[in-house]
Amino acid sequence: MENPEIIFGKNSVTEALISGKREINKILISKNIHTDVKINKIKELAAEKGIVFQFVGKEKFQPYAEFNHQGIIAQISPIKYADLDKFLKNKEHTNSSLVILDGVEDSHNLGAIIRTCVCAGVDGIIIPSRRNVQVNSTVEKTSAGAVNHIPIIKVNSLVNAVQTLKDNNWWVIATDASAKDNYYDVNYNDMNFVIIMGAEHAGVSKSLLKQSDFVVKIPMQNDFNSLNVSNALSAIIFETVRQRICKNI
Amino acid sequence: MENPEIIFGKNSVTEALISGKREINKILISKNIHTDVKINKIKELAAEKGIVFQFVGKEKFQPYAEFNHQGIIAQISPIKYADLDKFLKNKEHTNSSLVILDGVEDSHNLGAIIRTCVCAGVDGIIIPSRRNVQVNSTVEKTSAGAVNHIPIIKVNSLVNAVQTLKDNNWWVIATDASAKDNYYDVNYNDMNFVIIMGAEHAGVSKSLLKQSDFVVKIPMQNDFNSLNVSNALSAIIFETVRQRICKNI
Repeated sequence: MENPEIIFGKNSVTEALISGKREINKILISKNIHTDVKINKIKELAAEKGIVFQFVGKEKFQPYAEFNHQGIIAQISPIKYADLDKFLKNKEHTNSSLVILDGVEDSHNLGAIIRTCVCAGVDGIIIPSRRNVQVNSTVEKTSAGAVNHIPIIKVNSLVNAVQTLKDNNWWVIATDASAKDNYYDVNYNDMNFVIIMGAEHAGVSKSLLKQSDFVVKIPMQNDFNSLNVSNALSAIIFETVRQRICKNI
Repeated sequence: MENPEIIFGKNSVTEALISGKREINKILISKNIHTDVKINKIKELAAEKGIVFQFVGKEKFQPYAEFNHQGIIAQISPIKYADLDKFLKNKEHTNSSLVILDGVEDSHNLGAIIRTCVCAGVDGIIIPSRRNVQVNSTVEKTSAGAVNHIPIIKVNSLVNAVQTLKDNNWWVIATDASAKDNYYDVNYNDMNFVIIMGAEHAGVSKSLLKQSDFVVKIPMQNDFNSLNVSNALSAIIFETVRQRICKNI
């Protein structure tokens, strides 16, 4: 396996085994950890799939001390990013949703966003190939393995990607702290839409704001005007879920 | 100053200076970092308040290498936890809101929750004195200083705290993945309410579920049923904001 990636923790390893989307080279588990239900499940799944499972001394985990590895790691193939054109062609999109991340730099935020998107049934996440954190081990860990349950689409140009989506009749909603409309003023029913979330500090870039059909904000209830990007997305994305279940805005 | 706490990063130090709620002993800044707008603002605020401001070599930051300190730390007095009885007596509560955390163990989650609560105008956060992470340096950093903008109420017994709130006519809403009602089915208008969020794995404890007026869930749109607690809270708390602004459910 070329350049295998290391994933950490019980949930991430379990999810990688269940999803079956990634080639798993080897699972290493510390001799010192307590064997619990989750570890037994991992052993069982690995045996089923004929994946090597080794008990090792804790010194093997030394290089990963900064990660919350819970005494278990796996060497797996890097995630396969998806392609936007293929994503659009692969199925008839009706009431689909996408999230675009424009310059999110923090691995924990990307992981939390992926996890939230999967729970909310978002159909894919688009990230640019530059100026944005890529899927790494910390992202995988923070996502609790959600990274295996949603296409992560990497594009060279977000401007081109948004234009492609517009050409395919997707509605484009960008978030901006100075927007006039609130996120819940938009009717998310009966359309394919993409929500654009900006960088932690700079927000959504001007070129993308210009392309957007709606620009919305979350109404802050306090002078302390600094919501974390993953928490902001969660508020917005579950409002779209609410609207679609309740059939109202 | 007895047992000063160390806070890290430009935002946390700025917030501590602005809020003025914590005694600041000393601010240390690395000689090697680039002086930007935020650093200049910190110098200005420190000068106004007569707080010692020292440029030091980067070796002084060695003990804090695991933190994202951005080359700036401050020694400050530990946060003062608030008292529930005083909180309830201090003002007439109308349309107030509280969040109870029942066993949240992760510092990043607590920090993100505090930040979200401040942005959503929540009036206070209640944590138990045991079996829950306390406010530490990581929490302060992740909260981006929000910890200075909201009372954090520490109680010995959550069961007693909930009973006190009920005796004071607060409505109690607990979250549970197996609940029948969705979080947006509750009408949050015209009442004081408290939302109970559970531990990352175990959820809200049974005794608290029993005391609750409503038990609600977030409807998952995928088999992958594992939303991060801070993202879950964000979806719920901004729905209460939406309802109160829109005057509907």
